[in-house]
Amino acid sequence: MGTANTKPNVVILGRDGLENPGNLEQIREVANVRLATTADLGDALGAAGGADVLMLWDFFSAALRDNWAQAQGLRWVHVCAAGVDAMMFDELRASQITITNAHGVFDGPIAEFVLGSIIAQDKQFHLSKRYQQIKHWERRDTIRTAGRSALVIGTGGIGRAVARLLRAAGLEVTGAGRIARTEDPDFGTVLRTDELAGYAGDFDNIVTIAPLTEQTAQMIDADVLTAMKPSAHLINVGRGQLIDEKALIVALREGQIAAASLDVFETEPLAADNPLWDMENVHISAHMSGDVVGWRDELAQLFLTNLQRYAASEPLANEVDKEAGYVRVRPAQH
Amino acid sequence: MGTANTKPNVVILGRDGLENPGNLEQIREVANVRLATTADLGDALGAAGGADVLMLWDFFSAALRDNWAQAQGLRWVHVCAAGVDAMMFDELRASQITITNAHGVFDGPIAEFVLGSIIAQDKQFHLSKRYQQIKHWERRDTIRTAGRSALVIGTGGIGRAVARLLRAAGLEVTGAGRIARTEDPDFGTVLRTDELAGYAGDFDNIVTIAPLTEQTAQMIDADVLTAMKPSAHLINVGRGQLIDEKALIVALREGQIAAASLDVFETEPLAADNPLWDMENVHISAHMSGDVVGWRDELAQLFLTNLQRYAASEPLANEVDKEAGYVRVRPAQH
Repeated sequence: MGTANTKPNVVILGRDGLENPGNLEQIREVANVRLATTADLGDALGAAGGADVLMLWDFFSAALRDNWAQAQGLRWVHVCAAGVDAMMFDELRASQITITNAHGVFDGPIAEFVLGSIIAQDKQFHLSKRYQQIKHWERRDTIRTAGRSALVIGTGGIGRAVARLLRAAGLEVTGAGRIARTEDPDFGTVLRTDELAGYAGDFDNIVTIAPLTEQTAQMIDADVLTAMKPSAHLINVGRGQLIDEKALIVALREGQIAAASLDVFETEPLAADNPLWDMENVHISAHMSGDVVGWRDELAQLFLTNLQRYAASEPLANEVDKEAGYVRVRPAQH
Repeated sequence: MGTANTKPNVVILGRDGLENPGNLEQIREVANVRLATTADLGDALGAAGGADVLMLWDFFSAALRDNWAQAQGLRWVHVCAAGVDAMMFDELRASQITITNAHGVFDGPIAEFVLGSIIAQDKQFHLSKRYQQIKHWERRDTIRTAGRSALVIGTGGIGRAVARLLRAAGLEVTGAGRIARTEDPDFGTVLRTDELAGYAGDFDNIVTIAPLTEQTAQMIDADVLTAMKPSAHLINVGRGQLIDEKALIVALREGQIAAASLDVFETEPLAADNPLWDMENVHISAHMSGDVVGWRDELAQLFLTNLQRYAASEPLANEVDKEAGYVRVRPAQH
């Protein structure tokens, strides 16, 4: 450990009601730490010496943009989330600041959530629960999940984990990303997302886990929804803005698709007057597909490990490609 | 194909409201077929020449026992189900009659149902649905399914398929059966079911898929339930009688275990006054975990294939060990 004056100056952005990282004392061993909220982020960034590191513990905060003038000493921003869309802006993108994220933490949990959502729909768990509430016994035929097809839109770490788990359960998986390719170790074939409407009709399940960027916003639009199978199941664990929500509501009402399992929405929390709440073929959860017990501690640990590298002038892990909006993944070789 | 008088005489036991096998014409090419219901099964079995084959298309029927005196010409009974408990009786067990069943048809579907039930509980899908009904948005931490433990009680074909799928999803699987062993290719370790209360407390999930026999009836009793973790999830896809239902209701009410996903019950359909209907930590389905679209056709096809073997004097597939009550499985080598 270096002497006090060689320690990096770290600002941790939290918010009221959000507990501090559980390993704060360990972080303090490596860095000079100042805790901030949106209200005093500018002061914290510009304080004596200037902060060189910002850790967005409150990971959906856009406060950095609002305090950009005070952030000129920053060299590194760590975001405790997989998606960096909420905090990104043009000046940051154009700057020399390195962005890292929580790449990896959510892969396995979200993959399980997706597989569970598919089986729950195929086996009619939601209908069984409704029948239970009215004490109705009705034996029905359900769907064999193995052998069904799934398109996973998004070829980052989470998309790859989803693809591997769905394959392990016997689904036929195809990927969709910016660049078409074959023989991908996780996906086999990857199709181009900008041609989505042309092949969306080939799949029983479509999973959206692409990063939210200018290119991916509203990618599931009325054209794509119309092209999908009437029996199709849409699972969104990425960002609400990947889908044209108004068009989705129409598609679900009119039977253009069969069902949607939605963990994310255009506006969160979902407004009380949003029609999605009342739709029997919609399964809503509260942006929590990746949040397994201990996830906050895992996020904090990941930052600490990276901070130790920073202090030792070693290369940082999980560097985000600021143009792409995500960490570029080299798929695991199988 | 032989001449008409070398064809076997087959009685197919159906019931009112149950459609005949879809491949009946193909069956007629191989055999002299008489369709019967409970009302005329005795006549059908004893008719001119005498039936040598009985196919229990109505697979939960106990009508053979009631018409045993007319069944003296029988050489083979095929049951279109995985469990033969409902149709079995001592005289049949002691006879020379070969029993075959629908071994294999339900393996994959039930395995999916079990994995889906586990993930649905771990990810709080049922609670999310309840919250959806009252438009309540609440982000919660959920359970990482991979790494959790599962005990699969029953080492037949379905139990093995369950074990393989749970392992593929990252659960730590142990088996339980009549005979303890290690290095089983599907289970690794298999523990003795008659020592269940001693180790039931070691598992996050317990799956019951044993055949119903004198030895297995009420195997999940108050002692076992008391030994289980308060956080444990019990999944029953075997027979209701494997569990002491009264003790289970107490255990669920008093928090001795966390939740139960139940596809089978002591009495089916489940009576309207059964307290299980109203319990928030119970997930009820109507004995349908194996019933995927096309299952009836698959059952009929499986019988036809075996009938062709019978007509050609070849060994039958899926012969049930009548003492054990199930088809003895040689686990697949991996």
